[in-house]
Amino acid sequence: MNDRILQVDNKVMKRLYNLDTNAHMDGALPVKTKEMLGLVASMVLRCDDCIKYHVERCKAEGITEDELFEVFSIANIVGGTIVIPHTRRAVEYWDALSSQ
Amino acid sequence: MNDRILQVDNKVMKRLYNLDTNAHMDGALPVKTKEMLGLVASMVLRCDDCIKYHVERCKAEGITEDELFEVFSIANIVGGTIVIPHTRRAVEYWDALSSQ
Amino acid sequence: MNDRILQVDNKVMKRLYNLDTNAHMDGALPVKTKEMLGLVASMVLRCDDCIKYHVERCKAEGITEDELFEVFSIANIVGGTIVIPHTRRAVEYWDALSSQ
Amino acid sequence: MNDRILQVDNKVMKRLYNLDTNAHMDGALPVKTKEMLGLVASMVLRCDDCIKYHVERCKAEGITEDELFEVFSIANIVGGTIVIPHTRRAVEYWDALSSQ
Amino acid sequence: MNDRILQVDNKVMKRLYNLDTNAHMDGALPVKTKEMLGLVASMVLRCDDCIKYHVERCKAEGITEDELFEVFSIANIVGGTIVIPHTRRAVEYWDALSSQ
Amino acid sequence: MNDRILQVDNKVMKRLYNLDTNAHMDGALPVKTKEMLGLVASMVLRCDDCIKYHVERCKAEGITEDELFEVFSIANIVGGTIVIPHTRRAVEYWDALSSQ
Repeated sequence: MNDRILQVDNKVMKRLYNLDTNAHMDGALPVKTKEMLGLVASMVLRCDDCIKYHVERCKAEGITEDELFEVFSIANIVGGTIVIPHTRRAVEYWDALSSQ
Repeated sequence: MNDRILQVDNKVMKRLYNLDTNAHMDGALPVKTKEMLGLVASMVLRCDDCIKYHVERCKAEGITEDELFEVFSIANIVGGTIVIPHTRRAVEYWDALSSQ
Repeated sequence: MNDRILQVDNKVMKRLYNLDTNAHMDGALPVKTKEMLGLVASMVLRCDDCIKYHVERCKAEGITEDELFEVFSIANIVGGTIVIPHTRRAVEYWDALSSQ
Repeated sequence: MNDRILQVDNKVMKRLYNLDTNAHMDGALPVKTKEMLGLVASMVLRCDDCIKYHVERCKAEGITEDELFEVFSIANIVGGTIVIPHTRRAVEYWDALSSQ
Repeated sequence: MNDRILQVDNKVMKRLYNLDTNAHMDGALPVKTKEMLGLVASMVLRCDDCIKYHVERCKAEGITEDELFEVFSIANIVGGTIVIPHTRRAVEYWDALSSQ
Repeated sequence: MNDRILQVDNKVMKRLYNLDTNAHMDGALPVKTKEMLGLVASMVLRCDDCIKYHVERCKAEGITEDELFEVFSIANIVGGTIVIPHTRRAVEYWDALSSQ
């Protein structure tokens, strides 16, 4: 579906996709930190698809389960228990990735 | 005002304040990373008081301006241009802290 | 400013104002309960003007400080520590009303 | 389910449904513009059911794909990349409507 | 999945779960009122899992359909028509519980 | 403060500012429609600075008071009465612009 969207001649959408990639690239902060930032932002904004994406990227960057749960705990404290159902689905996805 | 709130005999409020402190303490992730996580969460949820608090804590943990702006850029990409006015106030506060 | 808005010939705005009043009137649930519902909703959505309005209405309906803080604690647990700054301002307003 | 809700003797819910219909009717602004306004609001608030409804209504009002993507681009810039998954589902629905 | 989360040695998550339970326990306000407060907060924050949980708890506390719809009407007025799809699913769940 | 931000060598922030400008430029949809879209998005996301900016831009594009109030009514219906305080400030700003 991303290809379908990028196929349309809409510069703003294309550049925003690029910017999102750029924002999470290695810079003053390492990729792993940026992916954790992306994850916590996605959790408090409660976007399951975004959470899945960043959990996967965090795993690829070598995040440990203890680190992951500390990201979760900040998201849940700052964002409230409304974040719990998203946390459950995030753990489910993390476990699925781990068992592959 | 926090003292006024903690003075009331309400366990839930007291413990939540404690938990918030706990969530940002040194653990599997260092304090500096956790403060950046708290900052990005506060930015996408657009809470100026919370942003100020975490900018101050980030500075105390030695965050550089380049690192700070990378946190800002993730908050603005993920949360949208609606975060820009809060970013302006965050920079204003950062500059005030720097000139002390 | 509400008068200014209602002066304009826009039926939707006028009726929405009416509906808001209607929704908080005595019905299957008493006014006091409804005002607490309006307060908790305003807190998790973090609207200071709305919080002030409902704190004032709750006080008029005879809410006690212990009850008020239990409403606050649900708002803070469900909505997260992002609600704390709004809680501080709510307590400040409550104290101002009490000292009149 | 809407019928089930309207069947209950609750005036506030009934009138709110009516008001929603009224707000999107032809007035100083034409229906097509209002449907685009409803769509962009639904996108930044990230409500898939509401997005689908307004995409369908926009199509009925003759919106072109280029226009639709400009609405999408404003929603994604203002609301952030958190809106992307909803945009993907909106395009999917638009394509399904187009192929009927 | 809650068990899976509580199994991990993360104090913040464990205590937050506890606090959520505590916040909804009998106190200055009765459980039924607190469950309605939890429900209205979940509705305006648009969390379907949380809404289901509180609808079930409200039913267990003897809420009537008229009372339930008055909670819904406050949620829909304060939170807007964006809450309607969640209200539909809440009524569906309420009906499923009633027909058991 | 925008200049201060753009002065920092952070490509993501600079490009996002550019994209925001681009998204509201004349295209398949005229500038006036896009400014109304930006306004309604800012209202339901409840960002006063953004609302002011778009009210000013809408006025520059020749929006009438009746049209403006129809944008307001969609924002208030979709986003709920939580939008009312922001609508009051928007009208105040509109009146200030008109009396210049």
